[in-house]
Amino acid sequence: MNPDITRERENATFNVEKLTHILDGGIEKTKRRREIESLVISDPDFQSEDLNFLSRSERYDAAVKKSAQMILKLREYGISDPEEIYCYKSVFRGNHQEPLDLHLAMFLPTLLNQASPEQMETFFIPAWNLDIIGTYAQTEMGHGTHLRGLETTATYDPATQEFVLNSPTITSIKWWPGGLGKTSNHAIVLAQLHTQGKCHGLHAFIVPLRSMNTHIPLPGVVVGDIGPKFGFDEVDNGYLKLENVRIPREHMLMKYAKVEADGTYVKPPSAKLTYGTMVFIRSMIVGEAGHALAKSCTIAIRYSSVRHQSEIRPGSPEPQIMDYQTQQYKLFPLLATAYAYKFVGQYMNQVYHRITGDISQGDFSELPELHALSAGLKAFTTWTASEGIEVCRMACGGHGYSRCSALPDIYVNFVATCTYEGENTVMMLQTARFLIKSYQQASAGHQLSGIVSYLNESERRLQPQSVSSRPTVVNVNDLASLVEAYKLRAAKLVEVAAKSIQQELQKRVSQEDAWNNSAIDLVRASNAHCHYVVVKLFAAKLGEIGDTGVHSVLSTLALLYALQGIQQNSGDFLQTGLLSVPQLSQVSQRLKELLAQLRPNAVALVDAFDYCDEMLNSVLGRYDGNVYEHMFEWARRSPLNKTEVRNHWRPASLPHLY
Amino acid sequence: MNPDITRERENATFNVEKLTHILDGGIEKTKRRREIESLVISDPDFQSEDLNFLSRSERYDAAVKKSAQMILKLREYGISDPEEIYCYKSVFRGNHQEPLDLHLAMFLPTLLNQASPEQMETFFIPAWNLDIIGTYAQTEMGHGTHLRGLETTATYDPATQEFVLNSPTITSIKWWPGGLGKTSNHAIVLAQLHTQGKCHGLHAFIVPLRSMNTHIPLPGVVVGDIGPKFGFDEVDNGYLKLENVRIPREHMLMKYAKVEADGTYVKPPSAKLTYGTMVFIRSMIVGEAGHALAKSCTIAIRYSSVRHQSEIRPGSPEPQIMDYQTQQYKLFPLLATAYAYKFVGQYMNQVYHRITGDISQGDFSELPELHALSAGLKAFTTWTASEGIEVCRMACGGHGYSRCSALPDIYVNFVATCTYEGENTVMMLQTARFLIKSYQQASAGHQLSGIVSYLNESERRLQPQSVSSRPTVVNVNDLASLVEAYKLRAAKLVEVAAKSIQQELQKRVSQEDAWNNSAIDLVRASNAHCHYVVVKLFAAKLGEIGDTGVHSVLSTLALLYALQGIQQNSGDFLQTGLLSVPQLSQVSQRLKELLAQLRPNAVALVDAFDYCDEMLNSVLGRYDGNVYEHMFEWARRSPLNKTEVRNHWRPASLPHLY
Repeated sequence: MNPDITRERENATFNVEKLTHILDGGIEKTKRRREIESLVISDPDFQSEDLNFLSRSERYDAAVKKSAQMILKLREYGISDPEEIYCYKSVFRGNHQEPLDLHLAMFLPTLLNQASPEQMETFFIPAWNLDIIGTYAQTEMGHGTHLRGLETTATYDPATQEFVLNSPTITSIKWWPGGLGKTSNHAIVLAQLHTQGKCHGLHAFIVPLRSMNTHIPLPGVVVGDIGPKFGFDEVDNGYLKLENVRIPREHMLMKYAKVEADGTYVKPPSAKLTYGTMVFIRSMIVGEAGHALAKSCTIAIRYSSVRHQSEIRPGSPEPQIMDYQTQQYKLFPLLATAYAYKFVGQYMNQVYHRITGDISQGDFSELPELHALSAGLKAFTTWTASEGIEVCRMACGGHGYSRCSALPDIYVNFVATCTYEGENTVMMLQTARFLIKSYQQASAGHQLSGIVSYLNESERRLQPQSVSSRPTVVNVNDLASLVEAYKLRAAKLVEVAAKSIQQELQKRVSQEDAWNNSAIDLVRASNAHCHYVVVKLFAAKLGEIGDTGVHSVLSTLALLYALQGIQQNSGDFLQTGLLSVPQLSQVSQRLKELLAQLRPNAVALVDAFDYCDEMLNSVLGRYDGNVYEHMFEWARRSPLNKTEVRNHWRPASLPHLY
Repeated sequence: MNPDITRERENATFNVEKLTHILDGGIEKTKRRREIESLVISDPDFQSEDLNFLSRSERYDAAVKKSAQMILKLREYGISDPEEIYCYKSVFRGNHQEPLDLHLAMFLPTLLNQASPEQMETFFIPAWNLDIIGTYAQTEMGHGTHLRGLETTATYDPATQEFVLNSPTITSIKWWPGGLGKTSNHAIVLAQLHTQGKCHGLHAFIVPLRSMNTHIPLPGVVVGDIGPKFGFDEVDNGYLKLENVRIPREHMLMKYAKVEADGTYVKPPSAKLTYGTMVFIRSMIVGEAGHALAKSCTIAIRYSSVRHQSEIRPGSPEPQIMDYQTQQYKLFPLLATAYAYKFVGQYMNQVYHRITGDISQGDFSELPELHALSAGLKAFTTWTASEGIEVCRMACGGHGYSRCSALPDIYVNFVATCTYEGENTVMMLQTARFLIKSYQQASAGHQLSGIVSYLNESERRLQPQSVSSRPTVVNVNDLASLVEAYKLRAAKLVEVAAKSIQQELQKRVSQEDAWNNSAIDLVRASNAHCHYVVVKLFAAKLGEIGDTGVHSVLSTLALLYALQGIQQNSGDFLQTGLLSVPQLSQVSQRLKELLAQLRPNAVALVDAFDYCDEMLNSVLGRYDGNVYEHMFEWARRSPLNKTEVRNHWRPASLPHLY
């Protein structure tokens, strides 16, 4: 054990294990999580060379094998609770992805949700047994977030009782689905349904892609890998071009909408049913943002405690780089953010489970709010977490740039969340739509409830209009007061956006152009709303914590989170008159004090995340702090070092070039 | 040609070619640049498969071969002017790096600068002929920016007239030098010189690493590749452990410092001589920031003109994504930034050449200012450009995540500049040291000249202290007025940092701790200073432009750059009383107008950068806008598609898994 890191742990002022229990949701959950983790870690089938040393094709081949083994083992161990599966997969994956993920996460659940009982019988068990390996093919080369734009067609032919599927243009080729390129033999394909001369919009069809015997693509199916990406090296994201591919009528997912034998179309009872899945996935992503940032902070903070560099006082030994105020200012607010997002993830998960209960009983009333919240928070957390991972990486200096730090892997695999499952700017604008609608309702005299109740007229009248008209009451040392300030900032920025739309409308532009011409303000309003929600939830979490030591350190983190957000967005707070200029100097001063206050607990706070070395797979983030020996050992395994002299080019003109 | 992009070009209001000449520095330079580019592009030896389809070892092997060929061809074509070599290399490299780069960029120049005439004779011609392939080994595993911390030793043994080189600890192993792992047979090694029982600090030694015949490492030399990184896949960044390696006395670089045969040490005449190289490299990096961002903007803006998505008006065709205000707000300020950095790069280059003239005549007077400026601007531009590349990538949606966009390559290879050649935070603090020193001189009554003259007492007294004490005079439509506002902001933030140090000193902490406890403020001050310099230089550039159309569009860009910087840092401008709250709303409104105003010229503005398709190597950034066909063609070449069915694992338990 590196003596520097040992000393850090000795200096902590709180019980790490207790904080871990809070993060897990209880002592029993910590215990079970560790059991599951040790199943993966001790499994000889899952030991492998660092994926960074393999070519992409090798990575894919290794990943398919492990991915299938994982599914078998989950059954062998009887792990079936979704949370436990998630836990198992998290350890198993480390910082990477797996080609069978969409089979588990989209193909099987879509069958469960949308297949008729007969279809379940035909497809579910074979899929469960991995006879059928499926993916979910929605995105097309020319069409992403805007689903109505999808071009793939499924035209019903009553003569043969089949659907004929086609990719009519190059832009209609399915593009991106994970596992589509080489792994899957089936796909759920989203296509525009045509029957009896009419288009009924997007519906889902089960399309066999490859022979169940030979795995060769079926006639009319042009399928392959879309090539290397920023990350996701292990996944065969694929393309799919359909050329008059015929499937039986029974391959349309018919739990809700139906096409009868003669081609008659039967509408689904409600369009809101598919909302739930999106909300669920976006909520999961919020938790992932906390997870990715927590891992990155663990690596950067542990490394900062063992790395010595430069000098603060001339002639003294080189200090730990964590002693530099600039390093603390980079890392500690991110540490606070990681905690915040973990708590927000917990909250989203609870709300989702509560609301799905209501939904299954036909009560959709809370869905719009949750939908709006999950969209905005997905964007808000993934953007800031992505930036934060890179800050952590660069805070490790040159060694952060090495793949041995794991930070490049964490970044490239996480940053995709900014784009998939709803591109972030589009997500922010969805949340803005809900906020503006709520604002207009409040303006019309309706009393709002829930998270947007701050938009109610009565409250808005109490808001400050400018520096001069109202004395500032924010107390920068009081978290509750800061939550209030965030709330008022959000209210103000929603108002600014709404007024921008009104002004545009007065210029006689259309409603749509007025919206687009106010989009910058709308995104800004959504951002402020999400920021408020995060600060509020972090503050609320403190109320649940009984242990004094833990409560104290988390309170410091929450205050740091709130104050740093104010400093970074000081223009908003000054502009809306929520803070005065002298108060802003106070904020700066208080931030420095909080950094110094957190310094002794930094390593303990990342220890509490409880990521084992196998999950981090980072030489810099090792629990024992013995960084350099292992970096040297890791480097020597680099494929370029297999021979002392590479057998490469010797130009005729340069016979002396080795 | 895609009709969307043709229409964009038809709508431009200025002459693209004229702007290209301005960027190149004249019509003749444009012509010569294009000649050099076509040499590379038409060269059959340089045609190769997309590097993204190769394993890292294959990439290295291909790169070494091409790198050596390039050097031969430069001689064949008689290209020897540094600017022309740089141009040739830029095209040759595309978005990648090359293993022989340090040989050309560090090994040969260091010999030129520091070798004695006898050493030149022994080493330079063999190095020029690639008999000797060298690198520059400074950084150690445990020591980066702080040179005094380096541990490698070179101890003089007068008995044999040799130096004995050692890596006494694991942290002293040389780590990171490019080309060190497998390519080089020599290295210039920086080591602590010990002679006659005394240490004389860092000196440079030429150390043979590998046999000139077999390329096998020499006795005592442990050398290899440090493993895969975020980028730089083609480069064998290496490690070097020296175990009692003996080199002749004549292998110490002795143009300045010397060790005589008996071990007597002779001091160098001036320590400032090595400053120049650092300043030069950092100035180059500023230009590279403009270059990387310009490439990224070219890709994202061209793609945004051909990509259609979602709807603004219901029922209308999907609009070009560049019509979304949010997309304009992401990309156009970055486009303005790319222009700004290109102009700053030009300026730095001119200043460097002017000052090196002075230096060679023994006049070092301007060096501290240039050193401070190059440090800060290196950090300022690389941070913002790195973030900007990622914004461009994400603005391309899912396809930006594909390696076919080239944006991942541009990012991973560029972002390293934030860390190498002086870690950015350290650079900012170096600039701050100069600013604080200047501030203190001004406070003591000295009259400052040059870029920091705004810190003079007389000017500072004219600065606003608070909103109330002074009416705001900034005109948000006037660039000169905005430059003034940036200047006053910098002055204010330097003052804030200086006062923080004073306050700390009043608490009786040491000078060094006071500095560290003010580091956040110091970095902020440097940032503001650099921002001011960039805005000022952009404004100054406009004065040189005669063509009305070009002048008009560049003026719009400059205004956008200045106003967006104010919006992003609105807290600073409000806090210092430079802007009022109503003016900030004006800034927001004006920004939206500028975006709309730039919209018709966006494609023409990236065309003016004049990157040929071969240099961009991006399917999304193609000049002809025919994105989708080529994306499909590119994907089909993915190595995973070599066979329809991959020959992978069939577990005994899952015989049905293809």
